[in-house]
Amino acid sequence: MPAPAPQDRGRCCSYRAVQKRLPILSWLPRYSLAWLQLDLIAGATVGLTVVPQALAYAEVAGLPVQYGLYSSFMGCFVYCFLGTAKDVTLGPTAIMSLLVSSYAFHDPVYAVLLAFLSGCIQLAMGLLRLGFLLDFISCPVIKGFTSAASVTIGFSQVKNFLGLRGIPRQFFLQVYETLRRIGETRAGDAILGLACLVALTGLGAMKRRLSGAPGAEPLSARVSYLIVWISATARNALVVLSAGLVAYSFQAMGSRPFTLTGEVPQGLPALRLPPFAEAAANGTVPFGRMVQDMGDGLAVVPLMGLLETVAIAKAFASQNGYRIDPNQELLAMGFTNILGSFVSSYPVTGSFGRTAVNAQTGACTPAGGLVTGALVLLSLAYLTSCFSYVPKAALAAVIVCAVAPVFDAGIVRTLWRVKRLDLVPLCVTFLLCFWEVQYGIVAGVLVSGVLLLYPIARPPIKVSDRGGLLVQPGSSLHFPAVEYLRDTLCKRALAASSPRSIILDCRHVSSIDYTVVVGLADLLRELRKQGFALAFRGLQDNVLQVLLAADLDEFQHCTGWQEADETLCLSGAEAAAAWQQ
Amino acid sequence: MPAPAPQDRGRCCSYRAVQKRLPILSWLPRYSLAWLQLDLIAGATVGLTVVPQALAYAEVAGLPVQYGLYSSFMGCFVYCFLGTAKDVTLGPTAIMSLLVSSYAFHDPVYAVLLAFLSGCIQLAMGLLRLGFLLDFISCPVIKGFTSAASVTIGFSQVKNFLGLRGIPRQFFLQVYETLRRIGETRAGDAILGLACLVALTGLGAMKRRLSGAPGAEPLSARVSYLIVWISATARNALVVLSAGLVAYSFQAMGSRPFTLTGEVPQGLPALRLPPFAEAAANGTVPFGRMVQDMGDGLAVVPLMGLLETVAIAKAFASQNGYRIDPNQELLAMGFTNILGSFVSSYPVTGSFGRTAVNAQTGACTPAGGLVTGALVLLSLAYLTSCFSYVPKAALAAVIVCAVAPVFDAGIVRTLWRVKRLDLVPLCVTFLLCFWEVQYGIVAGVLVSGVLLLYPIARPPIKVSDRGGLLVQPGSSLHFPAVEYLRDTLCKRALAASSPRSIILDCRHVSSIDYTVVVGLADLLRELRKQGFALAFRGLQDNVLQVLLAADLDEFQHCTGWQEADETLCLSGAEAAAAWQQ
Repeated sequence: MPAPAPQDRGRCCSYRAVQKRLPILSWLPRYSLAWLQLDLIAGATVGLTVVPQALAYAEVAGLPVQYGLYSSFMGCFVYCFLGTAKDVTLGPTAIMSLLVSSYAFHDPVYAVLLAFLSGCIQLAMGLLRLGFLLDFISCPVIKGFTSAASVTIGFSQVKNFLGLRGIPRQFFLQVYETLRRIGETRAGDAILGLACLVALTGLGAMKRRLSGAPGAEPLSARVSYLIVWISATARNALVVLSAGLVAYSFQAMGSRPFTLTGEVPQGLPALRLPPFAEAAANGTVPFGRMVQDMGDGLAVVPLMGLLETVAIAKAFASQNGYRIDPNQELLAMGFTNILGSFVSSYPVTGSFGRTAVNAQTGACTPAGGLVTGALVLLSLAYLTSCFSYVPKAALAAVIVCAVAPVFDAGIVRTLWRVKRLDLVPLCVTFLLCFWEVQYGIVAGVLVSGVLLLYPIARPPIKVSDRGGLLVQPGSSLHFPAVEYLRDTLCKRALAASSPRSIILDCRHVSSIDYTVVVGLADLLRELRKQGFALAFRGLQDNVLQVLLAADLDEFQHCTGWQEADETLCLSGAEAAAAWQQ
Repeated sequence: MPAPAPQDRGRCCSYRAVQKRLPILSWLPRYSLAWLQLDLIAGATVGLTVVPQALAYAEVAGLPVQYGLYSSFMGCFVYCFLGTAKDVTLGPTAIMSLLVSSYAFHDPVYAVLLAFLSGCIQLAMGLLRLGFLLDFISCPVIKGFTSAASVTIGFSQVKNFLGLRGIPRQFFLQVYETLRRIGETRAGDAILGLACLVALTGLGAMKRRLSGAPGAEPLSARVSYLIVWISATARNALVVLSAGLVAYSFQAMGSRPFTLTGEVPQGLPALRLPPFAEAAANGTVPFGRMVQDMGDGLAVVPLMGLLETVAIAKAFASQNGYRIDPNQELLAMGFTNILGSFVSSYPVTGSFGRTAVNAQTGACTPAGGLVTGALVLLSLAYLTSCFSYVPKAALAAVIVCAVAPVFDAGIVRTLWRVKRLDLVPLCVTFLLCFWEVQYGIVAGVLVSGVLLLYPIARPPIKVSDRGGLLVQPGSSLHFPAVEYLRDTLCKRALAASSPRSIILDCRHVSSIDYTVVVGLADLLRELRKQGFALAFRGLQDNVLQVLLAADLDEFQHCTGWQEADETLCLSGAEAAAAWQQ
């Protein structure tokens, strides 16, 4: 899906403006049969992935199993109309489910209200255009997050390959428990998982070899090409369906060698207002009390949702060469959560694993989401019995193949070559993401923020001692630098040879703030006490104006670029007069 | 107390280095009788303030009343040796007490352990020299905080003037309740409070009029000068003692017109290890469990402690013309909390009100703390019965007179004249401080951070359309700017006249990061797709090296400052070769 053309920005109420708010309008008119084919396959594959994942995540969130499915379809429908990234799929995710379990106290009423309120907050952020906040997530942070997430999500599937149950969610505990209990591996799951993995890898390699449509070959060649192309492209769905059939056959023969998805309660969720109060044993819990109970969650859940969705959207947008609009993503997510809360959904966000599946299956537009959503609804209404035969090992293979290419080891070499300092946020994000994904991203953003602020706090200051002391800050002066400037200047002044005059050359200082002005006033006072004279030189007009307005004691400004004693020096009053002329 | 001379920095193991770690060594050798006089008066006045405050704050913290006194003396002793600001007094404060009440569950065992752990964290921060973090608290934020705090603390004393009880702590509720219940005013308290206020204001005005010692006047004039000088300088102690005597006389006559401080349990705290486990009804609560219970508190308490102390220290240092060392403040506070936990103290920090009293009474060194500490110990051991006669209205008058001069309305006019943008962090801090002081400071720091980062995220980009498009970023390019640069460039490129060539003039770009490189690569690809050619010009050596290392497709670099078509343009490979020559 191409980005809207840049010249649309700023215009309002035109078709372009509507298109910007409803991105579907920019791709629907150009929709083709070829896209439909690929979207159908992608949507169906994601659908086959989301159903068992939804059940698993509902358990993580501490909610009854059907709430995972209730949360899985609204995002697909809404995102099709409002989303700007063709690959992103909204729905329940591991991280969000964990957050829900902390803030909703394993109570569906709280979870649904949390979805509604988070949606409102995200919608408000989108309307206030706070999406720019995401400019502050740098490439190394995203790469660190996605690489760590691919390892974490990939490893979380190992237990399904081995048929192990009751493995904890936390990465390090998971590794420990999985290795400790590797002896309990179920042969059926391991063999089926490996077979699926091999099939998926083989078909994937085949897909990469096929390039372009066949030319004027005979019909038989074209038909076999088509068969190979379809199997290679729909390989995820194919493998899952085959595995399901195998599992069904074994079951029909009375044998159960595989761990299956299992029974899912049937029936669509009721359409109703989100709950604004809860009936409890000891009277009704009112709305205010519920909001108070959720506390921090009302900040953490919407923000983590935004962070996850946009980090994922940015990663896939960069990989697949399109651009996203964070404000629009916020609107899409806000609407999804609000509307979702009317059908008993808990808060959702962009799913890394399913987005990878979607991208890799070859989705062309978010229309695939309609198929995914329909599949979830159908499965809720009729098909739960069919989905229950899907072996977990087959789904594990799909997820592993989807997330494996996202792991980017080459980035370390690239950064080493291009910009070594950027390895710091990368490594911090990567390593902390194994602890908790949200901590990794936050720490990475903070570290990149520190790298941004460091030159502001410690600007280069050139000091040369030629008769008097010439001090030249290399950039603008902002408040975090003022103590450093004072320290440097006092230290050098006391160590300097006589005569005791100091010139502060401000030619590179293009702006200055009040804290710096106060610091300079203190500095003037301090130096005067110790018998030094300080004069300013090369002040730019706006900086001079600020200093004159501050009315510093004994402020001296020298015009011209030469040494102070060779040029015209003005006191504060003279400079002000000269300025007004 | 003067700051240690700047040239001491960096040298270790010398006397200067020891002096830097033990600031007492820099003022003790110069200690004089005049200083002693003033320190004694200041210490005694602060001591008379801290005792009743300690009792009130212990109640805020939800602890038995004596824990306030247990927390009030260690800071005075430790700060005398380790502190860098002459005015600061460490001890229980309103904000810290409130935090303790949230994190220590009204349980002294938790409170004391929290003090120990907070102290360890602060000590570690000091040793790691993390004090530089406070460079990021700008002048407007400090002014906003101190002005709001002076209003809040001043108003919190109104209830004591009126003799009202049971007024809530939160500012807005306090205002509402105080106004609602103004009819319940006790005449005795109101009259005494007003009298104290008038006396303090009069004596303060007298102090300002007295300038210099009397010359060769007759003895009687010199004696009366001395009497006036002492009463003006020791006015706080004088007023409190007089009010106490008045209250005692009334009590002796069987009348009780004033609200008094009341009974204080007598006896020094036991010297013992802080509790690393707690005996509970259902078995012992182990150390790990207690740490887990305190959770966030272990980050919030030490950080808020640091923020409060250094914000106060900076404010008074700037007002009284000396400088503080944040790392040394951290060490002082860390030691205070650790040693305090051995005498059942809860976490302490710099007290705004008492620091103001100390500064205003004319403290010359932190030695006054010894008097304060001794007074607290004496009062615990013997004097509780004497302190119990001090009327609350008299203490309220002392506090109001101490905090009133801190309110700085002139700063708004100054900022309007000097730098209007700095009014934003000022107002945000000021207003939010009425809600919760810590929110105000954090929001102010964030707003000033945003003002710092804005020019990085949205650098000036000059675009001129002269045949080709000439794009000139006005500063270095960092990751938050990359989306903006891409948007601007694409928008202008699509709107430009032919020929379709773009020159990116990077003469002001002195550094670049990996995210920008990736953004430029995407930009090159995007523009090429739309039929534009992009060439770089005026690249500084380090930026050129980064771009060459990144090996961009179709990277073109033009040397010289003229238009690209007049000068030598090199492709990536040629530029690399030229670079290596």
